[in-house]
Amino acid sequence: MNAITAYRALEDRFEKMAVLGEALSVLHWDAAVMMPSGGAGPRAEQLSALRVMGHELLTAPETADLIAAADAADLDDWRQANLREMARGHARAAALPPDLVAAFSKACSECEHAWRGARLENDFASVKPLLAEVLTLTRRRAEILSEALGLSPYDALLDGFEPGASERRIEALFSDYRAFLPDFLAAVLERQDREGPKPTLSGAFDVGRQEALCRELAAVAGFDFDAGRIDQSAHPFSTGFPGDQRITVRYNAADPTFAIMAVLHEAGHALYERNLPPDWRRQPVGSARGMGLHESQSLLIEMQASRSPEFLSALAPKLREAFGAQDAFTDEALQRLVHWVQPDFIRVDADEVTYPAHVILRFNLERALLRDDLPLEDLPAAWNDGMTELLGVTPPTDALGCLQDIHWYDGAIGYFPTYTLGAMAAAQLFQAACAADPEIKPALARHDMNGLQAWLTENVHAHGSRMSSDAVLEAATGRPLDPKAFEAHLTERYLGA
Amino acid sequence: MNAITAYRALEDRFEKMAVLGEALSVLHWDAAVMMPSGGAGPRAEQLSALRVMGHELLTAPETADLIAAADAADLDDWRQANLREMARGHARAAALPPDLVAAFSKACSECEHAWRGARLENDFASVKPLLAEVLTLTRRRAEILSEALGLSPYDALLDGFEPGASERRIEALFSDYRAFLPDFLAAVLERQDREGPKPTLSGAFDVGRQEALCRELAAVAGFDFDAGRIDQSAHPFSTGFPGDQRITVRYNAADPTFAIMAVLHEAGHALYERNLPPDWRRQPVGSARGMGLHESQSLLIEMQASRSPEFLSALAPKLREAFGAQDAFTDEALQRLVHWVQPDFIRVDADEVTYPAHVILRFNLERALLRDDLPLEDLPAAWNDGMTELLGVTPPTDALGCLQDIHWYDGAIGYFPTYTLGAMAAAQLFQAACAADPEIKPALARHDMNGLQAWLTENVHAHGSRMSSDAVLEAATGRPLDPKAFEAHLTERYLGA
Repeated sequence: MNAITAYRALEDRFEKMAVLGEALSVLHWDAAVMMPSGGAGPRAEQLSALRVMGHELLTAPETADLIAAADAADLDDWRQANLREMARGHARAAALPPDLVAAFSKACSECEHAWRGARLENDFASVKPLLAEVLTLTRRRAEILSEALGLSPYDALLDGFEPGASERRIEALFSDYRAFLPDFLAAVLERQDREGPKPTLSGAFDVGRQEALCRELAAVAGFDFDAGRIDQSAHPFSTGFPGDQRITVRYNAADPTFAIMAVLHEAGHALYERNLPPDWRRQPVGSARGMGLHESQSLLIEMQASRSPEFLSALAPKLREAFGAQDAFTDEALQRLVHWVQPDFIRVDADEVTYPAHVILRFNLERALLRDDLPLEDLPAAWNDGMTELLGVTPPTDALGCLQDIHWYDGAIGYFPTYTLGAMAAAQLFQAACAADPEIKPALARHDMNGLQAWLTENVHAHGSRMSSDAVLEAATGRPLDPKAFEAHLTERYLGA
Repeated sequence: MNAITAYRALEDRFEKMAVLGEALSVLHWDAAVMMPSGGAGPRAEQLSALRVMGHELLTAPETADLIAAADAADLDDWRQANLREMARGHARAAALPPDLVAAFSKACSECEHAWRGARLENDFASVKPLLAEVLTLTRRRAEILSEALGLSPYDALLDGFEPGASERRIEALFSDYRAFLPDFLAAVLERQDREGPKPTLSGAFDVGRQEALCRELAAVAGFDFDAGRIDQSAHPFSTGFPGDQRITVRYNAADPTFAIMAVLHEAGHALYERNLPPDWRRQPVGSARGMGLHESQSLLIEMQASRSPEFLSALAPKLREAFGAQDAFTDEALQRLVHWVQPDFIRVDADEVTYPAHVILRFNLERALLRDDLPLEDLPAAWNDGMTELLGVTPPTDALGCLQDIHWYDGAIGYFPTYTLGAMAAAQLFQAACAADPEIKPALARHDMNGLQAWLTENVHAHGSRMSSDAVLEAATGRPLDPKAFEAHLTERYLGA
């Protein structure tokens, strides 16, 4: 087979995998949003069957042969990058023996199931042996991937979530933030305290009205209801594909700002997916780059744009209109409310200042666990010591400590850092966008994100997976990822005039 | 490979196809109920990709080899029947060349799309060339299947919808009904007219209350909301699998009996699927027998049980409670309303007396079209002549005539007869059930269908595809399908004391 024919056959093969992936995303969404409880068993089998089919296509010897044959093809930049991404995906998947893949999948599923009970019962001991098994298999996966990809074991795991990320780079970024945080946090808390108590909301906020406002704001962030849906689920998420993007949200009757910010966050994810290069739809090079860059797009829309004073100045009147005027809905009180900083136990509820500390703790602990430097029985204490050291709060229970997050129990080691990589990238990109187009910020005060969307599409979304995340950042901002824009953003927002 | 190993490998292979089929059913449901319009293109591609994967598994040479190898295995009755059904499915699918399958699928999809516009515009000419192509390819399919299966071309098509059905048997059943209908219909209309006008409903009936009542009645018919959902869609349907069955319905604000009867109809389909033999789940022998027997289960619950005087006597007070008392909700008026007979143009709106005439017309015309005895340009006139002859009404437009149904335009030739086979089987089975358990009818007056469900499960559902539909009927009622129970049912209901 000649090289260009091989390349074309690969495009067909990867398109098939992408279509399978789309079907999987609908089945996942349905399971979270629509499925009756009786469907759980059959659905798990359906998901697994489709995943196995995709995995078989990706790891098939024919795929390896085609990749080798296509190597000699005279391809343009995009196709070269596409072939590189195909080879990357194949290499990762083919390196792992099928029995290890199956054993890992089974261990994760059993551990995750046990974790749900353990968290409810605050009983780390009950899930510990299952987590030990997940860790053992993760170490084996990391070693095999390390060998195959020429990366350290931890970097080989990271690479599955954010290609090109490395422990060394993350250590440098996180050290910087760790040095920045203590004095900054003390100053923020001192000032916050000086300015008075946290605004309190009064009343139950009608879910129908919350939903209407969320839909209006999602549209501001570019969400298209002819090509997407917003529904409710226990945990907000975003999924789908161009033409049919789906966001979920949970409404809190006591505070409408939770759902509003969650929808804007998920709309940022959806915007990225929607504006990926249409010519490369269903090809690896046309996919989102990595979890870190993906999170940068949601955090850019939520944290940078939608929690900006400009955006909030237009949100306050909408809240007053929807729910009636109250003290917390003055412009000034709303800002204090959504900018409230509070060191606390739970990562998913954390503000943007303390959030990285939660991530740094997990980054340190998961590397120690992977290296077998931290015995699992010492994890709860190590967690609590870390929280005390980083944020000055000590979780009273493991449910509020090392049992709070699903990720490790579900086998996702190497994933946590992407949250903070995303937060840092969001600040750096937003800074560059506002410098390139001075109308972006004033437009936010009119709830107009068109300029921002255009800049993001051109400078981030349209690249798909053509370049590394760092190369995207360099092209868009003039430099690779660094923590300074994020720190400057926090300083301006929390200690500015 | 030894014979029993081959048989076991076939079970694994067909389970995989069944799981794919379940995923497809979720994607279909989602497309009809949830999907935004922008999802139509990607969804068509997802459905097609999964269908192709299933088709490849079914037609693969390995499947043929395994079937041949398993033939020598010493199998019990169920496994023998399972192997027979596997061979049947494989033979049908493998007989058709892949390029014909692809061309037919494309022609159907284009024709169906054009039909939607043509029906709206009342423009048969615009869809005629596309229907001609569907017919040409259907003839080719029928010839190839005829050769492969040793059936006549039309029987080979029928067999795809109701295994074992034959043109000759259907002709005999339909001739009988055609002889019965004219005098019977005249007598029904004369008596109906004598007893006064059709009861009229007044008011808009709140959709929320309709929905609550529909859910209550679905539960009466055995629907389990922990293992299923009821939603709205343009056309009611039933899909899913044990653990997760999904019914849809459309609410008519002017008449709550439409949604109620539609839900009970779909609940009958769901009941069949739910009570199929659990030991044979995801195997061909554990599947529903055919479209005719499936329709018998929906029509039994709807037409035989739920439109019975007993059931209606308990429905009337529920309607009065939900929507307030009115003339149409007296016991007597409600019966007249849901038993109203009216020769008219549209099949899906037809009463149970005139419905078979709609089917007989289509049965005659589709055979003439298939044989090329009826030029397509003559179809509209032939349709209208047939309606005039059968029911004494002449459609004023093709939209109310030969453009009304999706089926031919979607490539389903040989499907229409199953509606009336189902109606006749429903009457025969209900008669036998009531004879076997005299408590079934009185229990309907308490909205208790437990006895009926138990009889149906034992005598119909639990057989899966172990026997032919006729063998199921013979075992359950003592005779193969005949039209007499149906005619007796109509005579009692419409001309009885």
